[in-house]
Amino acid sequence: MVGVMTTIKTAVVGASGYSGEQLVRLLLRHPGVEVVALTSRQEAGRGLAEVMPRFRGWPGVDGLTFMLPDPAAIAATGAAVAFLALPHGVAAEVAVPLLEAGLVVIDLSADFRIEDPAVYAEFYDHEHPAPGLLAEAVYGLPEVHGARIREARLIASPGCYPTSVILPLVPLLRAGLIDPATITTCSMSGVSGAGRKASVPLLFAECNESVRAYSVPKHRHLSEIEQELTRAAGAPVRLTFTTHLIPVTAGIHTTTVAALRPGVTAAAVAGALAEAYGAAPFVRLLGEGGCPDTKHVVGTNFIDIGWAVDARTGRVILLSAEDNLIKGAAGQAVQSFNRRFGFGETTGLV
Amino acid sequence: MVGVMTTIKTAVVGASGYSGEQLVRLLLRHPGVEVVALTSRQEAGRGLAEVMPRFRGWPGVDGLTFMLPDPAAIAATGAAVAFLALPHGVAAEVAVPLLEAGLVVIDLSADFRIEDPAVYAEFYDHEHPAPGLLAEAVYGLPEVHGARIREARLIASPGCYPTSVILPLVPLLRAGLIDPATITTCSMSGVSGAGRKASVPLLFAECNESVRAYSVPKHRHLSEIEQELTRAAGAPVRLTFTTHLIPVTAGIHTTTVAALRPGVTAAAVAGALAEAYGAAPFVRLLGEGGCPDTKHVVGTNFIDIGWAVDARTGRVILLSAEDNLIKGAAGQAVQSFNRRFGFGETTGLV
Amino acid sequence: MVGVMTTIKTAVVGASGYSGEQLVRLLLRHPGVEVVALTSRQEAGRGLAEVMPRFRGWPGVDGLTFMLPDPAAIAATGAAVAFLALPHGVAAEVAVPLLEAGLVVIDLSADFRIEDPAVYAEFYDHEHPAPGLLAEAVYGLPEVHGARIREARLIASPGCYPTSVILPLVPLLRAGLIDPATITTCSMSGVSGAGRKASVPLLFAECNESVRAYSVPKHRHLSEIEQELTRAAGAPVRLTFTTHLIPVTAGIHTTTVAALRPGVTAAAVAGALAEAYGAAPFVRLLGEGGCPDTKHVVGTNFIDIGWAVDARTGRVILLSAEDNLIKGAAGQAVQSFNRRFGFGETTGLV
Amino acid sequence: MVGVMTTIKTAVVGASGYSGEQLVRLLLRHPGVEVVALTSRQEAGRGLAEVMPRFRGWPGVDGLTFMLPDPAAIAATGAAVAFLALPHGVAAEVAVPLLEAGLVVIDLSADFRIEDPAVYAEFYDHEHPAPGLLAEAVYGLPEVHGARIREARLIASPGCYPTSVILPLVPLLRAGLIDPATITTCSMSGVSGAGRKASVPLLFAECNESVRAYSVPKHRHLSEIEQELTRAAGAPVRLTFTTHLIPVTAGIHTTTVAALRPGVTAAAVAGALAEAYGAAPFVRLLGEGGCPDTKHVVGTNFIDIGWAVDARTGRVILLSAEDNLIKGAAGQAVQSFNRRFGFGETTGLV
Repeated sequence: MVGVMTTIKTAVVGASGYSGEQLVRLLLRHPGVEVVALTSRQEAGRGLAEVMPRFRGWPGVDGLTFMLPDPAAIAATGAAVAFLALPHGVAAEVAVPLLEAGLVVIDLSADFRIEDPAVYAEFYDHEHPAPGLLAEAVYGLPEVHGARIREARLIASPGCYPTSVILPLVPLLRAGLIDPATITTCSMSGVSGAGRKASVPLLFAECNESVRAYSVPKHRHLSEIEQELTRAAGAPVRLTFTTHLIPVTAGIHTTTVAALRPGVTAAAVAGALAEAYGAAPFVRLLGEGGCPDTKHVVGTNFIDIGWAVDARTGRVILLSAEDNLIKGAAGQAVQSFNRRFGFGETTGLV
Repeated sequence: MVGVMTTIKTAVVGASGYSGEQLVRLLLRHPGVEVVALTSRQEAGRGLAEVMPRFRGWPGVDGLTFMLPDPAAIAATGAAVAFLALPHGVAAEVAVPLLEAGLVVIDLSADFRIEDPAVYAEFYDHEHPAPGLLAEAVYGLPEVHGARIREARLIASPGCYPTSVILPLVPLLRAGLIDPATITTCSMSGVSGAGRKASVPLLFAECNESVRAYSVPKHRHLSEIEQELTRAAGAPVRLTFTTHLIPVTAGIHTTTVAALRPGVTAAAVAGALAEAYGAAPFVRLLGEGGCPDTKHVVGTNFIDIGWAVDARTGRVILLSAEDNLIKGAAGQAVQSFNRRFGFGETTGLV
Repeated sequence: MVGVMTTIKTAVVGASGYSGEQLVRLLLRHPGVEVVALTSRQEAGRGLAEVMPRFRGWPGVDGLTFMLPDPAAIAATGAAVAFLALPHGVAAEVAVPLLEAGLVVIDLSADFRIEDPAVYAEFYDHEHPAPGLLAEAVYGLPEVHGARIREARLIASPGCYPTSVILPLVPLLRAGLIDPATITTCSMSGVSGAGRKASVPLLFAECNESVRAYSVPKHRHLSEIEQELTRAAGAPVRLTFTTHLIPVTAGIHTTTVAALRPGVTAAAVAGALAEAYGAAPFVRLLGEGGCPDTKHVVGTNFIDIGWAVDARTGRVILLSAEDNLIKGAAGQAVQSFNRRFGFGETTGLV
Repeated sequence: MVGVMTTIKTAVVGASGYSGEQLVRLLLRHPGVEVVALTSRQEAGRGLAEVMPRFRGWPGVDGLTFMLPDPAAIAATGAAVAFLALPHGVAAEVAVPLLEAGLVVIDLSADFRIEDPAVYAEFYDHEHPAPGLLAEAVYGLPEVHGARIREARLIASPGCYPTSVILPLVPLLRAGLIDPATITTCSMSGVSGAGRKASVPLLFAECNESVRAYSVPKHRHLSEIEQELTRAAGAPVRLTFTTHLIPVTAGIHTTTVAALRPGVTAAAVAGALAEAYGAAPFVRLLGEGGCPDTKHVVGTNFIDIGWAVDARTGRVILLSAEDNLIKGAAGQAVQSFNRRFGFGETTGLV
């Protein structure tokens, strides 16, 4: 696409899970990226195409072999940036030495998303492992914190549920169109969101022909969702957030309901969303009455947002759909990478 | 099970759809039923096992052939009861002459569920075809209207969404535990709920790996849900009800959120549900924190109900799961039939 | 169904897997069975309804608790028969003491299906643990070895693949209609066939939208398939048997192709199948051109068989479909139990 | 990829089906293509993004509107090439005037794949509509007929089943390694292969949890498969070909079995495949024992081929997997387009 493009040496730490796989897919095709390190404790020493057969024969794959997640070894590859696709808790342990070695870190875990270490401890059941870094970490939602991302050394890239809940609500809260005390959210996630781990409840025969709620009533992601909604509302927000597992591999659908403030019209809702996202390349506004479908966003970095005003109850219903592994994980992280390293926001993503 | 059991001659009108198929399955195995008529405009003249190969070789299937849905012909079979599994609007046309011919009618459509013909017209876009029958029709939710069902000539058996929404809420509204102005409901339905009709949006390749809301914000079933919740609350109830199509064949999961009245405890919630359903054979209460899974109810007439009190927001989260074609259609109708004709409530259903 | 029925005290050993669950489901409803013991090393001490929520509220479930698979303790319950739903190798260890304690053993593993211990060692990579029992074990395919099952002390109940391959072929081999040197078989199995074990390749996100062959070219079940086909043909049979994993929970479909002997007509094929299975209550012959569909047999003990003569190549194509956990496991074992203990063949199975 | 690239004006005729959608997806991203016409009788007048919401916001989509499939109007757009994604029979009617107007035609239907009009009539039940064009049409399998494709005016691009069957067999037949009289093939296809047409058997609730064979024993694609295998073998080939519908949206898996000629080794099989496809960018050879999985090729133009020699029977088992809509339809057509118009073979396809 571009004649001359700077190439950024890039590491993916924890590349053998589902988000890691999507990161590899996107970064291999990104014209401004040279993948110099892939790590996986479990797959160290094996070739990328052997571990992930879908990459056989792709350009740039032949030399790639998984290495152990040793920060010194990662830094020695000359990587300027590391994406971390690791479990929470583990990510911070790797982030600290990589930052010290001068890399930019884009962390897909929850470790640096919560500004307040007390909230982290409440929701994650252990003390924060590196509280000194929380102040400088930037919550990596490009549509909300785009300017800060450009300067960040540590980007805490948000995951699937928070993205799908926060993006539709922020413009309405900022504009004061809804009553923040009335928000309820119902999310449905594909099974890949639970990760590639051997677990009976995630077996095909357990998930197929099944729908079930889980982590009710206090899912861990509530902590970051409330943090960001509070920021947008300028006042504390607490909401009810219910998560469900449904039998799709990829995709999240979130339905959010809130009471409109008196006198707020459907046009005002549409206006606030259009103003916020009219220029956002990955937010597609479907208009009032539009119902997003996960199948139209899976495999892409788009989030589709539709809405309806329920005149009978004075509420707005917000509907959002995204690929949980792309806009909800790897794609969003690459979007922040693009901002941080001066690429066009959509580079490598469309 | 029983030594001597009265046998009721039974007709199934509109037996070739998904609810009809489940009715046939249940009635063929019901020890108190003799199936004397199956109708289908489309399949008239064909044998049951030819149209529905899963019934090949079942006891009692060999002589059964679909006939046209002619009320006189149905009455001539000597049927004492007719189950109607027809589209709304059409059901009333058949119900009237069957009632006149002296049959008990158990209608699975929406035609006789709404007491107020103005509400029917508002939600179904046409005048009610037989308003004179609305007063005597009984809303066929056995756990709520069990006594009236025993005497009814015309039972309006509720469908999948209303059952899953109404049953968890009725005890809490009756006991005044929740604020009726705060109810929001999020339902996820399997694709069989849309019926066996040739339609591109219902194709496998359109529904698989897809989640989408539809009929937002004013699904037709809101009318009967609000009617029944209003009755339970003793005051008008309006709620937000959002329906989603998910890629399972059978099953509905409903998540309902409402604000608890000040001072209401988790124990009070549990107590109200236990009091209402402790003796109800098809309602399984999973306790606080219990999350129902559709896969545990599919193929059965059970509805599983779990709940959680969200202390952070003062709300209750109600979770319910049922088979949309059984407790949400055919099974519920047979349950009413059992009450109406003096069988044990679970006869033919376990 | 029956006025007075002997009740057989029954144990299910290894009841927490998928086949075990189906055994429990069928035996709980069987009018001639009293379940007196359920064992599971992993779930010992927990109640049945707690481990398998779908059984909550079923008649007879309340008192049932998993116990350790201790043969003496099982025998002490007074059980007259034990169904073993254990991995191969483990089953034999439990079978021996149970037989010594006087129980009839119906083993769903492969341990006693192979008459020749050398063949067992070749296919299962270890010496047979109890070769002295092989001579008296009966291969529990009721449609083929029905008479011997009535007298058996040890029934080796065949699994899903062998049943689907053997039943269509036996009548044609016995009648000499096909050339036994030309048989090729292609089977597609649902994921439950691999068992309820934590395993990454069996995750929903790995199996959904996926089809793959496995255990090519020498699946372990070839050993028993060839044994039974050799018996039917009266001469050694070797075949090619390729197994595939497809994204359904339950169900197996097998397509078998073989060259017809010169001059054999379609009518001869139909005649041989009709003669063999005309009176078999669980074999449904769909006729020439009939294509079975797993969805019509799932949840039942039926095997549906269709076929076509390919005049262009002189071959017959045999198509068979069954529920891998019922006719391919638990149902078949109960069918043998019925024969062994003098119940009607379909008791508890329709 | 390329600094300066000729841009070919391109029409897609019949763009609203599943293959058409994939053509649009690939062509919109192809650096050497300008899409100038999309036709659909049903969607004429509607915008692309309205009809196919997944394309909203894509570069190049905004101006695209479906038009009627009028050959003169298509030619008037200046298109140099037209892809036809139409039903057989209809395609020929459009191809003739487009060829006369000077366009290159790449037809994805079966209309020009069969050289012998008598064979066409036998398999498609009507006379060929344009037999005069059959001699010049080139069977568009780039790995087999690459040289002729470069010069072709009319390319008959093969579909999903034939590609998956022909590619693994051609090298073995050419090298005389297998006995052509012994080939049997078992294919499993995703439901999108049946097209986007309102049809009850293709509903989610009919296809989910279902596997079934169809078009047994004489599927229409046998005609072209046998034509191409006969060409490779240099002698008439007749095979048994059984097709199955499985519950995946995309993907085909084919398992082919044939007897090896005496003395043929596994190394000879591997050598013939490597020689034929070592330089083919879209054929990935997995080696002996390698089992392809459709999930690794879906969304790509790859076909993965694995194989095993069954020493016990002297047969080779060939396993192939592809995306039925890409390598089995749209991608293959674009691959031929690349050859025909001088682009690199992988342009726009990786």
